Amino acid sequence: MGNVTIKFLAKELNLSIAAISKALRDSHEISPATKKRVQDLAKQLNYVPNPYASSLRHRKSKTIAVVLPEVADSFFSEAINGIEAVAIKKDYHVLLYLTHESIAREEAILKDFQSGRVDGILMSISAETNCYQHIHSLFSKDMPIVFFDRICNEIKTTKVITDDFDCGYNAAAHLIKTGCQKINFLSISESLGITTMRKMGCMKACQDFNMENAFQSLLLSNKETESNYSMIKSLLKKKSRPDGIIASVEKLSLDVYFACRELGLSIPDDLQLIGFSNLSSVSLLAPALTTITQPAFEIGETAASTLIKAIEKKSFVLVDEHITIPSKFIIRGSTKSIVQEKSPD
Amino acid sequence: MGNVTIKFLAKELNLSIAAISKALRDSHEISPATKKRVQDLAKQLNYVPNPYASSLRHRKSKTIAVVLPEVADSFFSEAINGIEAVAIKKDYHVLLYLTHESIAREEAILKDFQSGRVDGILMSISAETNCYQHIHSLFSKDMPIVFFDRICNEIKTTKVITDDFDCGYNAAAHLIKTGCQKINFLSISESLGITTMRKMGCMKACQDFNMENAFQSLLLSNKETESNYSMIKSLLKKKSRPDGIIASVEKLSLDVYFACRELGLSIPDDLQLIGFSNLSSVSLLAPALTTITQPAFEIGETAASTLIKAIEKKSFVLVDEHITIPSKFIIRGSTKSIVQEKSPD
Repeated sequence: MGNVTIKFLAKELNLSIAAISKALRDSHEISPATKKRVQDLAKQLNYVPNPYASSLRHRKSKTIAVVLPEVADSFFSEAINGIEAVAIKKDYHVLLYLTHESIAREEAILKDFQSGRVDGILMSISAETNCYQHIHSLFSKDMPIVFFDRICNEIKTTKVITDDFDCGYNAAAHLIKTGCQKINFLSISESLGITTMRKMGCMKACQDFNMENAFQSLLLSNKETESNYSMIKSLLKKKSRPDGIIASVEKLSLDVYFACRELGLSIPDDLQLIGFSNLSSVSLLAPALTTITQPAFEIGETAASTLIKAIEKKSFVLVDEHITIPSKFIIRGSTKSIVQEKSPD
Repeated sequence: MGNVTIKFLAKELNLSIAAISKALRDSHEISPATKKRVQDLAKQLNYVPNPYASSLRHRKSKTIAVVLPEVADSFFSEAINGIEAVAIKKDYHVLLYLTHESIAREEAILKDFQSGRVDGILMSISAETNCYQHIHSLFSKDMPIVFFDRICNEIKTTKVITDDFDCGYNAAAHLIKTGCQKINFLSISESLGITTMRKMGCMKACQDFNMENAFQSLLLSNKETESNYSMIKSLLKKKSRPDGIIASVEKLSLDVYFACRELGLSIPDDLQLIGFSNLSSVSLLAPALTTITQPAFEIGETAASTLIKAIEKKSFVLVDEHITIPSKFIIRGSTKSIVQEKSPD
């Protein structure tokens, strides 16, 4: 029957709704005598504590939502571990929602939050998300939102990211130093900020090394693994095929390995490869994958503690800022050794 | 203020609590005139729909909890995908809780469910869980629970599993057929049912092939990856080291690869290896890993639809049964070819 009873009590006791609410919270602003009257009536009505009743009373559900593209990816699963580590410490519950890279699904999920099921949201947007009305309309209703990894710059809140531009720059610079003449950047989105930053980093490195024309990119599907595999194979069958690939998403690196195997191309002799991945198995691949390894756990942890602080402390406001936690560049066997150290022109 | 108002309305209108409840649900058992009286008063008190108020009214939160050891494991992340696919179709919310293999944490999580935050629970118990009081006390209060993968046989409910005994049997039989003389089974728990079943399957194969003495097992920590790595290295340094290993947990397979690399042992020449894993990267390892690949998505899906059916249909009761979805045995390069087909004695 919801929050009608405060009104009813107010009417019964001829008090304001605010006074009833404060009396029930045992506020010092209410006289002991009034508090007793209110609390006695509440007791008479046999009030039973319950998390949802308590949510109504405190307007807090002690629940946060995590909205992200998928869980079967080493970055996101480690980020969830980081989020959950903070949530359990702070006594919060974590609702998990997967968009599977669909903006329609993301919109439906966010629409449901209008009803007040959660106190705040941690979000990594889908590869399809290029319009942000669904996020705006929630954020404008004072729902705290913190973005991590795949952020939405338009929303004026805190974003926890890694140094994506530098990651792209370092990857491309390394490929240039190890002799690559044609670098291809594989991505699954044209709208995601992280993809743009990584790509811009790659392009800047090519510019700095006076190799603007060496850079190309291939946009793959954010859903169909099969079609991605064919597209990667087509790319590698071309006469003008790349001799260096930067895969901006974990699963694309594996597709490149499979395609090379099928086409009889050797990594790193015929094709050098750098991937974004946090899988511990990458160092056991044949050859081991050179990676950009993101601080997934720390990103999740930082995003969760910032969000919970904003939920709990009235004095703490989510500022429009980027918190950047750097990634590690780990060189392994899928790239050649640097024969001659080049420096940017 | 919770569910007090039904009582209050009952008192005000001189009706039973059940009658008020039915009238609010627009039940055909209540006369139109009475319904109108009840609904008018509810309206007068300005009832506002809200998921938590609605939870109180219907005693349903449309929320299920998933309690499992970890998310950074290909089996569990795929199982979550299966659970989530059903939840979104049925309009349910998924609360995710990770025990990180700790029984204390599992107990704390389950204790919190007593308050009615969720309508039902999907659970895969921790490697430490060898006493089930915390599960019993929740289940005995009519909380629907469905187990998946790591089940608790003591609780009389539905369990969704794979054919663990056969998985163990097939793995050991294959190692015997490919020439292994000393098989070691690596596990992280002595209490988990799935581990016991897999181990029993291995032992039965050894018996059937008249090689009882060929079988040994090593119990590793369910937490410390570092200490596991040392223990695996010690095992492989022994003069009497195994020539075949069955790793019952994904991450242990990777430890074996790393240890072999450090010790200069060749897989499969010096040591054959079979692992339980759903990682698509296993076929890119050097050498590719022979695996038992579990139907993770289907297990999650089946467990979730069974649980939601039990929540929604009064006529559907969770029976004490095992739903078994078979795994696939996929032979790759970490095991040798079968030179001579052996059959059990």
